[in-house]
Amino acid sequence: MVYPDSGFVTLNVKFNQRNLFIGKNVTIAASAKIGDNCTIYDNVSIGENSIIANDCVIGEPLSGYYSDVENYQNPATEIGANALIRSHAIIYAGNRFGDFFSTGHRVIVRENNVFGNHCHLGTFTDIQGFSVFGNYMRTHSSVHICQHSRVGDFVMIYPFVVFTNDKYPPTTIPQGPEVGNYTQIAVNAVLHRGVKVGKHCLIGNGSSIAMDMADYTFFAGNPAKLICDVRDLGQAKGETYYPWPLRFERGMPWEGIGYENWLKGE
Amino acid sequence: MVYPDSGFVTLNVKFNQRNLFIGKNVTIAASAKIGDNCTIYDNVSIGENSIIANDCVIGEPLSGYYSDVENYQNPATEIGANALIRSHAIIYAGNRFGDFFSTGHRVIVRENNVFGNHCHLGTFTDIQGFSVFGNYMRTHSSVHICQHSRVGDFVMIYPFVVFTNDKYPPTTIPQGPEVGNYTQIAVNAVLHRGVKVGKHCLIGNGSSIAMDMADYTFFAGNPAKLICDVRDLGQAKGETYYPWPLRFERGMPWEGIGYENWLKGE
Amino acid sequence: MVYPDSGFVTLNVKFNQRNLFIGKNVTIAASAKIGDNCTIYDNVSIGENSIIANDCVIGEPLSGYYSDVENYQNPATEIGANALIRSHAIIYAGNRFGDFFSTGHRVIVRENNVFGNHCHLGTFTDIQGFSVFGNYMRTHSSVHICQHSRVGDFVMIYPFVVFTNDKYPPTTIPQGPEVGNYTQIAVNAVLHRGVKVGKHCLIGNGSSIAMDMADYTFFAGNPAKLICDVRDLGQAKGETYYPWPLRFERGMPWEGIGYENWLKGE
Repeated sequence: MVYPDSGFVTLNVKFNQRNLFIGKNVTIAASAKIGDNCTIYDNVSIGENSIIANDCVIGEPLSGYYSDVENYQNPATEIGANALIRSHAIIYAGNRFGDFFSTGHRVIVRENNVFGNHCHLGTFTDIQGFSVFGNYMRTHSSVHICQHSRVGDFVMIYPFVVFTNDKYPPTTIPQGPEVGNYTQIAVNAVLHRGVKVGKHCLIGNGSSIAMDMADYTFFAGNPAKLICDVRDLGQAKGETYYPWPLRFERGMPWEGIGYENWLKGE
Repeated sequence: MVYPDSGFVTLNVKFNQRNLFIGKNVTIAASAKIGDNCTIYDNVSIGENSIIANDCVIGEPLSGYYSDVENYQNPATEIGANALIRSHAIIYAGNRFGDFFSTGHRVIVRENNVFGNHCHLGTFTDIQGFSVFGNYMRTHSSVHICQHSRVGDFVMIYPFVVFTNDKYPPTTIPQGPEVGNYTQIAVNAVLHRGVKVGKHCLIGNGSSIAMDMADYTFFAGNPAKLICDVRDLGQAKGETYYPWPLRFERGMPWEGIGYENWLKGE
Repeated sequence: MVYPDSGFVTLNVKFNQRNLFIGKNVTIAASAKIGDNCTIYDNVSIGENSIIANDCVIGEPLSGYYSDVENYQNPATEIGANALIRSHAIIYAGNRFGDFFSTGHRVIVRENNVFGNHCHLGTFTDIQGFSVFGNYMRTHSSVHICQHSRVGDFVMIYPFVVFTNDKYPPTTIPQGPEVGNYTQIAVNAVLHRGVKVGKHCLIGNGSSIAMDMADYTFFAGNPAKLICDVRDLGQAKGETYYPWPLRFERGMPWEGIGYENWLKGE
């Protein structure tokens, strides 16, 4: 199906269907918008009201495409409703995104991830594939997530954080980190192969996390050590910084009603 | 105004006006050159002799463009004279650049920064917006500058340096770092929320700067500590490394005359 | 020579010669494939069976192109046989790649490097130029290699590693690191100006390497210290992790026959 023939027409934003390529068996909701210079490969579906900005590649083929193109079948790629994928993204085939997925620019998402709803990937984020992401998880710029990672709901990951899956490189059996709901991971932190980080944790900037972290703990340093319970941070000033949902609402499902009220309604 | 209709024609470099989009109210000096595959959005002005290489986006719209395109007005973007913006840059609307602005490839500059003259941004640099930059400041590759930062004249920032604006993430009140004139920031250093770094300082590689630095100080480590006065570096060898303008002239306004003579003429 | 006129036609993969620019004196083997939206500048040669995916720039001109286009001559760029350059690469003029060169996405390779055979550069890798690379060397994502570096055979470099060539920045006399065959460099490590790292070494994550490393050593920390002989790692568990070729074969020339047998045949 070629896009200009698909009955899909009205674009309010500056998308002129200029230099656009659309492969076979592509389903684009009538209310979705596709930018100029995009390439949409086979077997992609894009949900209602989603926007794919300029210069994006959706459904990038896997290696077999180059080595055995005769027999290659592109895995399905599903982008839910209300996505906003900013320009120059490369999204591989075999990914499934929930609704309200958004990105900065130039993100790269390799194959076979599952994302929940309301996920956001910042500019230059590099997702290596085969991972599972919860709802409302966010990366800031230049985050690198290795293969076989698991990231919970409401996790926020700041610039240049890297997840690794290999202790004695190179390896043939990668094992990614797991991060629990609500955890915050500050800039430049490294999570090592197979570590399990609890929920509501805080990882300090530049930390090297090589051991598991219990719920509500704050670790920092290289090698990282337990500093305190996150709920103790700010106590000397009479403040409560964590759990952070008690003081931060923007874009969260508890916006306007408060985290504790929202929890009761869950 | 569409570019090919604008009376702007002669391109010596390989720019064929191939696949070019130019929005409304765009002003391009007759001596400027625009590369193939570029997108220039509304309300951009580009000064004399400036070169925008291939595949650049200038005046990238802000979020309102996607959420309320009917009422969206793109803020003005001003690029001065003698710019050389290398390929694949994304420059948001609402930025103002002085003359002789240059970049490596794939830089991203979000909205509402003011840059002086002779600034350079290295490949993969990521400027988050709402910041002020002096004259002759340079980033090397993959530098990340958070919102609400201030960077002085002749500051040089090396690969993977990150400026942060948040101590207990996430925050609703970001506060960026401030860096004084002539300061050098080595690879992988982190500048924390709201720190004030003086002039002629040196920040060692991988340093984590969480406290203010007086003029002419050298800090290093994580957490960073005062090591010495920068003017003492090299003394044991009978050398003077800092202030660096005494020994480095290439591309600087004191090239050929020396820093001290130049200072007298200021 | 314009590509569609060159007698080069059959493309099995989705490359429609859409929006393609090819300069003068470009030689493309008949079995090679060039993706859409590519720009191939003057004096490039591409070997048999090589694939240049979409949106690549090959032979990117040096600065003289912009400052003195009348007299500018683009240096030769040679890409050997069986390359797979994934989308959005920028390869400068003046580079020479052996056979079986491959990349992730958005790599940038500046001018005047020499690469052996079977090299791989990961997504977002940034090679600054004037360096020499052996056979079977690999970078993972977001590796930054400074000018005037030397990297041996079978070296593997993990995300966010940075090579530097300057102790007291800025400098006018850069001197890059040298890394011996088979060495592994873990995430976030920094190699300092002029260090010499031996063969079969291991550099721990986040290490700051400011002194030379003898063959078969494991260094870690900031500043990095000698931890042990790599051959001692795993001994307590009755395992041998290094030399790693004894336990890792995928994609290596000793695949199927074993490293020691392969060595005998060398």
